[in-house]
Amino acid sequence: MNRQGIIPTFKDFLPVTEKTPMVSLCEGNTPLIAAPRLSQQIGAELYFKYEGLNPTGSFKDRGMVMAVAKAVEEGAQAIMCASTGNTSAAAAAYAARCGIKCIVIIPEGKIALGKLAQALIYGAKVIAIEGNFDEALKIVRDICAKHPITLVNSVNPYRIEGQKTAAFEVCQQLGDAPDYLAIPVGNAGNITAYWKGFVEWKAAGKVDKTPKMIGFEAEGAAAIVFDRVIEKPETVATAIRIGNPASWQGAVAAARDSGGFIDYVTDEEILEAYRLLASQEGIFCEPASAASLAGVIKKRKAGVLPEGAKIVCVLTGHGLKDPDNAIKTVSGGPIMVPATEEAVLREVF
Amino acid sequence: MNRQGIIPTFKDFLPVTEKTPMVSLCEGNTPLIAAPRLSQQIGAELYFKYEGLNPTGSFKDRGMVMAVAKAVEEGAQAIMCASTGNTSAAAAAYAARCGIKCIVIIPEGKIALGKLAQALIYGAKVIAIEGNFDEALKIVRDICAKHPITLVNSVNPYRIEGQKTAAFEVCQQLGDAPDYLAIPVGNAGNITAYWKGFVEWKAAGKVDKTPKMIGFEAEGAAAIVFDRVIEKPETVATAIRIGNPASWQGAVAAARDSGGFIDYVTDEEILEAYRLLASQEGIFCEPASAASLAGVIKKRKAGVLPEGAKIVCVLTGHGLKDPDNAIKTVSGGPIMVPATEEAVLREVF
Repeated sequence: MNRQGIIPTFKDFLPVTEKTPMVSLCEGNTPLIAAPRLSQQIGAELYFKYEGLNPTGSFKDRGMVMAVAKAVEEGAQAIMCASTGNTSAAAAAYAARCGIKCIVIIPEGKIALGKLAQALIYGAKVIAIEGNFDEALKIVRDICAKHPITLVNSVNPYRIEGQKTAAFEVCQQLGDAPDYLAIPVGNAGNITAYWKGFVEWKAAGKVDKTPKMIGFEAEGAAAIVFDRVIEKPETVATAIRIGNPASWQGAVAAARDSGGFIDYVTDEEILEAYRLLASQEGIFCEPASAASLAGVIKKRKAGVLPEGAKIVCVLTGHGLKDPDNAIKTVSGGPIMVPATEEAVLREVF
Repeated sequence: MNRQGIIPTFKDFLPVTEKTPMVSLCEGNTPLIAAPRLSQQIGAELYFKYEGLNPTGSFKDRGMVMAVAKAVEEGAQAIMCASTGNTSAAAAAYAARCGIKCIVIIPEGKIALGKLAQALIYGAKVIAIEGNFDEALKIVRDICAKHPITLVNSVNPYRIEGQKTAAFEVCQQLGDAPDYLAIPVGNAGNITAYWKGFVEWKAAGKVDKTPKMIGFEAEGAAAIVFDRVIEKPETVATAIRIGNPASWQGAVAAARDSGGFIDYVTDEEILEAYRLLASQEGIFCEPASAASLAGVIKKRKAGVLPEGAKIVCVLTGHGLKDPDNAIKTVSGGPIMVPATEEAVLREVF
């Protein structure tokens, strides 16, 4: 009855040995929310896999719990990553849980403290270098190669192993694989992980089919769609603002092998989907998360997705990760009126 | 396997008729997280009921889904509340889900837009009056008495019905009732609801016992402990900064009838528990939520709670609701160093 966390729940499908600690913050088992009103409007059977209800507020917890458990198993006293966002929050939380050190390296420049609030409160040591993200990542890789510190950026292979468990859950929750799995594509690890999960779940005889994988990049960071590295990626969807995805080939393979595709959506389409989700279905996600719904809307309009198709849209993070964006998105703030019943009523009706 | 939401899951224990719509954002079924390290430090068997993993990030979703479902059943076209915090977020989300209007009345003054981000993005109409909170609530009550608009502030009796389901889950997750249920006390509806839930679950033969209810107010807002209305309540724990609790008598009865008590904790104790939870167990909650752990620590030190007692601490909201507080709480931000391996290593070891 209790959420056990992904390692105990799916240990037969994960790189778990007798020595792997059963680390858990009860990540996973996130809701698959049906969306009757949007389904009718869009002409498809839509569900949202709401990954924002993981403990630190994003899907990163699934991969990080696996990476940290293996780090502890291998005797690491510390983990390290270069990140300013969801990865650092997840790394810091699981390191705290295990009583090991977490070091987060960030590039200099305008540091939004809000984005680091989680890493700091979970007790990570946050070090800003006088350099850019690539330099930060290079330093992390160099240090981890020489010292007993485990690198937990996305090059850590256990991350994708943990993340694939979301595909298992989608199949369990629907009773079958969906027709399509729509997912935001940034660093491309998540689409790679879901596809691995669906393939393994089918191979184990749990379902008879796999879904078509349809991934959506932001137009200003659409490296895979345009087939070239984007030097200065730009999009409002910061969590997928990546110009040279680490799992590029994995994403291409997932789309090809599943019979799906990768396309892009504009910032306007992303923000429209972001508002729709909150105001029509009561679901608040990160802007990047809404790329999945934005893509489905675009492709339904284009007639690429058949009417009535069963589609699961992955929502990768909670809207509370980025409240400033919500404020910017809604037009105006509160209306001011005198403190009388009449004045309020004039605004209500 | 999927989270169904509290109404379908617990309908036999809720005021559900054939006409009640099965409204759900998959609220409830939140994790009960074991805390092995803090348990050892404190000398008790500690668990945390992490209510921040409800869809809008707080326990309010449980009561609100019930209140909104009944409003829809009764034909309301709109709901209304006076709130600047978690209540308005939950009200706005469920109204959006049901396609009805949500009006949130807030007092004038320094309005933290961040606190209203959720209500606004979910599409609520937010009206600020030139008056204080009491005036806002009076206007809401007057309007709801005369128009087909449902009041969803805590005087709505369905709120407590929905909230009591958390007690059912605690019993299911533990396999029994705990020895103690530690809970923050602000407006006192939640302690009232949990106690109602435990009593009903035992009456249904699901468990053999009920826990002792131990509630903790913030010192600067400890109306129940000091047995007087606090005109200007002050505490860092904004979610329990209430000087005249609506469910005062319910809280007193819960403590008395269960063999428990209500005490207060200082802001320092609350912030210390807030930091401990994040840095020792990887759990990030609202400051107000940490009042439960702060109280347990205080009472274990005083010898009031026996060694080894099985204690569930309720964490009412997610830390992401109030990231500014996290930033204020951690000393200093990132350390700045040159972009070299050596400079970073000097900070790591």
